[in-house]
Amino acid sequence: MIGEVPNIRVGQEFDSRRLAHEAGIHRPLQAGICGTKQNGAESIVVSGGYKDDEDHGDVIVYTGHGGQDSSRNQVSDQSLDDPGNAALVTSYLEGLPVRVLRGAHSGSPWAPAEGYRYDGLFRVTNYGSKLGIDGFLIWQFRLETYDGTPLPEPAKQETLPTDDESDDSDSGQVPAGTESPERVTTTVQRIVRNSAVKRQVKAWHDNRCQICELRIEVPGGSYSEGAHIQALGSPHNGPDTTGNVLCLCPNCHVQLDAGAIVISDDLTVIRGGAPDGTLRTHPRHVIDMSCVRQHRERWRQT
Amino acid sequence: MIGEVPNIRVGQEFDSRRLAHEAGIHRPLQAGICGTKQNGAESIVVSGGYKDDEDHGDVIVYTGHGGQDSSRNQVSDQSLDDPGNAALVTSYLEGLPVRVLRGAHSGSPWAPAEGYRYDGLFRVTNYGSKLGIDGFLIWQFRLETYDGTPLPEPAKQETLPTDDESDDSDSGQVPAGTESPERVTTTVQRIVRNSAVKRQVKAWHDNRCQICELRIEVPGGSYSEGAHIQALGSPHNGPDTTGNVLCLCPNCHVQLDAGAIVISDDLTVIRGGAPDGTLRTHPRHVIDMSCVRQHRERWRQT
Repeated sequence: MIGEVPNIRVGQEFDSRRLAHEAGIHRPLQAGICGTKQNGAESIVVSGGYKDDEDHGDVIVYTGHGGQDSSRNQVSDQSLDDPGNAALVTSYLEGLPVRVLRGAHSGSPWAPAEGYRYDGLFRVTNYGSKLGIDGFLIWQFRLETYDGTPLPEPAKQETLPTDDESDDSDSGQVPAGTESPERVTTTVQRIVRNSAVKRQVKAWHDNRCQICELRIEVPGGSYSEGAHIQALGSPHNGPDTTGNVLCLCPNCHVQLDAGAIVISDDLTVIRGGAPDGTLRTHPRHVIDMSCVRQHRERWRQT
Repeated sequence: MIGEVPNIRVGQEFDSRRLAHEAGIHRPLQAGICGTKQNGAESIVVSGGYKDDEDHGDVIVYTGHGGQDSSRNQVSDQSLDDPGNAALVTSYLEGLPVRVLRGAHSGSPWAPAEGYRYDGLFRVTNYGSKLGIDGFLIWQFRLETYDGTPLPEPAKQETLPTDDESDDSDSGQVPAGTESPERVTTTVQRIVRNSAVKRQVKAWHDNRCQICELRIEVPGGSYSEGAHIQALGSPHNGPDTTGNVLCLCPNCHVQLDAGAIVISDDLTVIRGGAPDGTLRTHPRHVIDMSCVRQHRERWRQT
């Protein structure tokens, strides 16, 4: 269950992990990350269990799972093979939202005074490893709120800069409270819903580009993009169906979208006006040929 | 001058093209598109001059320039060689905002009753050609508002769907008026400002990937991405300087961001753990080696 949980609002408080579990916000009772490599991370708990965590309110630097002993001392290296860490890599690669539950702890001015609080959806914007304070390798994930997610009231004056100005993303953080949470939720849920069609196609092709056969391998996963053959919305009005989506590497995706690649009725790939192989298919992935034709028509004079 | 014009607010009205010209909103007195292939489109005027235009308020399907006689009948094909059309392709490829000035005309419920009105920044989300109503080839550009741009009051009931639900983009349109225009402006201006560093690097390298030497050619232009070596913001805190930006194809960009590519001190590219050529440089593009080292450190265990 990726995305918002019905009837739970941003800012809602829970007295215990069990109550958050029962509400469906964060299902495990112990683990800080809920998710799988396959599906991505549903939710995380930010509760100060790792010394290297940073909490800037709209930006959280979250230390991955693993390598701690029962007293929460870091005693060995973390790994992307850990299922929780792998889930966060998938969330990054797929652009999926992650629910954040903050627990009371002294390390963050954004933590609730007691219990747990659901603070909305965040996205993973980058990750990487470093030597942690305790001298072992840790993995860290930068999570950012979506534009307009309301921030909780900080418990005390926040002294760290929120690095808003240096944010590279197109939807960087801004002062909270100027946008309705309902609207943000609607926008993000649409991202989740639309991504389902693309994820199906990418799964069928195991992230291998249907045009150039490249599968981009990165630490912790592989990467591809779901590309609409005929664009959604006016003036092209392509359908949001698997028949109108291809699994492509980013380079072939750019070329398809901008007409440098078109596809013939026999699935020959025409790149820059010349044949360049054949679109690879999959038994369960039936290409919508009307979309292929409309896309080709759109670029026929080039 | 890409982006907002100081002291001009969204919704501001102008009695004439000359007054809009003097305000700096749309500089040409006749042409509908202001811009160049090199820099992208600063602004367009939507005033019903082309039969194939569509205006859905938050989405505009804008017909390119050219092919009309002095009575505004379409008498020949349009071309991407037209400077205005080429400018809109650049805006698409670079992700740059375009100012929209709507003029009074009967074809759109979103047009002002008289004169001209500045309706804020839009982005070009796709383009393509088709046979227009008059039987000649036209180029069309889909423009969308940024999330939260206030919509004008429609002059009459809008009967066309605004295709909100089918919108594929991560920042698709939503009901207007729930977000402050100042905030949207700030966000978009940050996009413009941050893009300046990347555009400089891409210009030096003429859109050719510094790693794999690919330059993606598409109808009307070429495409590359400005990739920060060390990510901005916590926890990596890379600087937004040309020394921390590479000109890459999208595939190499994904791999750099996710640690599948790192760069050694002698600029050898290490892809998937093995040497894979040398980063191409440019006399004016001095790579910040501290960023290269920090990025490599971030992925040293992979």
